[in-house]
Amino acid sequence: MAELKQERAVRTREAILRAAAEAFDELGFHGASISMIMQRAGVTQGGMYFHFKSKKELAHAVMLAQRDFVRLPPGEDGLQRLIDITFYVARELQRNAIFRAGVRLAVEQGEFGLQDDTAYQQWVEQFHALLVAARQRNELLPDVDEAEFAQVLVGAYSGTQLFSQIATGRADLPQRIAALWSYLLPSIAMPRTLTQLRATPELCGGAASDAAS
Amino acid sequence: MAELKQERAVRTREAILRAAAEAFDELGFHGASISMIMQRAGVTQGGMYFHFKSKKELAHAVMLAQRDFVRLPPGEDGLQRLIDITFYVARELQRNAIFRAGVRLAVEQGEFGLQDDTAYQQWVEQFHALLVAARQRNELLPDVDEAEFAQVLVGAYSGTQLFSQIATGRADLPQRIAALWSYLLPSIAMPRTLTQLRATPELCGGAASDAAS
Repeated sequence: MAELKQERAVRTREAILRAAAEAFDELGFHGASISMIMQRAGVTQGGMYFHFKSKKELAHAVMLAQRDFVRLPPGEDGLQRLIDITFYVARELQRNAIFRAGVRLAVEQGEFGLQDDTAYQQWVEQFHALLVAARQRNELLPDVDEAEFAQVLVGAYSGTQLFSQIATGRADLPQRIAALWSYLLPSIAMPRTLTQLRATPELCGGAASDAAS
Repeated sequence: MAELKQERAVRTREAILRAAAEAFDELGFHGASISMIMQRAGVTQGGMYFHFKSKKELAHAVMLAQRDFVRLPPGEDGLQRLIDITFYVARELQRNAIFRAGVRLAVEQGEFGLQDDTAYQQWVEQFHALLVAARQRNELLPDVDEAEFAQVLVGAYSGTQLFSQIATGRADLPQRIAALWSYLLPSIAMPRTLTQLRATPELCGGAASDAAS
């Protein structure tokens, strides 16, 4: 019985998070309301309050759950997978409203009084692990500092997606990511690796098969 | 008489913009109020309404005025000046609240229903002009597309300052800008130019003299 109850609580929390993410994606933090989110999630005030005490707490949770809302494609760890993931995330930002909400809240968090870099550091850790794998595969130039470059990449990527969102509603994001890589890769990849890498929107992240489905 | 009146109108508009920028920097868009800004600027409701019809219009104006609130250091156009300006802007983001407000509003504009990339494109134009000068001075590698790299740099810079603001309140922004340049410069600068460029916080943007004053 206790297990069933816990399972239901997990499902309710998940339903609230999804409804909140949808509302925040459409309307932003100040535009969305707790009552609207409760209605969308089909939960009572008591159910909401059991999981989240305020809209700010809810927004914080959506921001931190951004990694749970995107399923990264499998692949062999290394530089190519790092590149593939950046294109995959670009496509997810275009089509996955729930993931997009987490990213939007991480960017606009100043507007509701948060200053928490956890969501950014989660990406830093992910990218760092792939860079460590790339180092082991002898794909990186000797001077590259894997930890430093992971931070640089998350910062550069965040601004690229922000600029693309404001300029074109993210329609040109894959092209902007390809341009960013074209100016970063020669500084990090071994010449032999550089000639083998694919860093263009057409060839990465399963864009072609998605478009066909 | 008409000229005096116009002059006064310009001064009033400027006073309102500065008061608004200070309020937005401290409190964000939703935290600041029109009445607070009127009080700080010392203007009446009529004076405010003559210049700005809503808080959103005011925030938009502060966002677009960000270039007026920062005086770029002089210097010979080219790659070194481009680098110097990025470090100078980093220091201004740390100490110039009015400039910082314009940047903050450009990042968080989604939260108050704007989607306007003008402020970003102003920086793209500025950077592009410096890259064209760098090309004329034969400082750029043949493959570099000046217009494209200007876009890449503004995107990467925007995210770097956002990440730094959330992670450390921008305390580490100059170091992050130096790291970004260390991975971009080898892809854009001629080898001869690369050895002569200074792209470290200590040597750029007059940090030393400011610290002493």
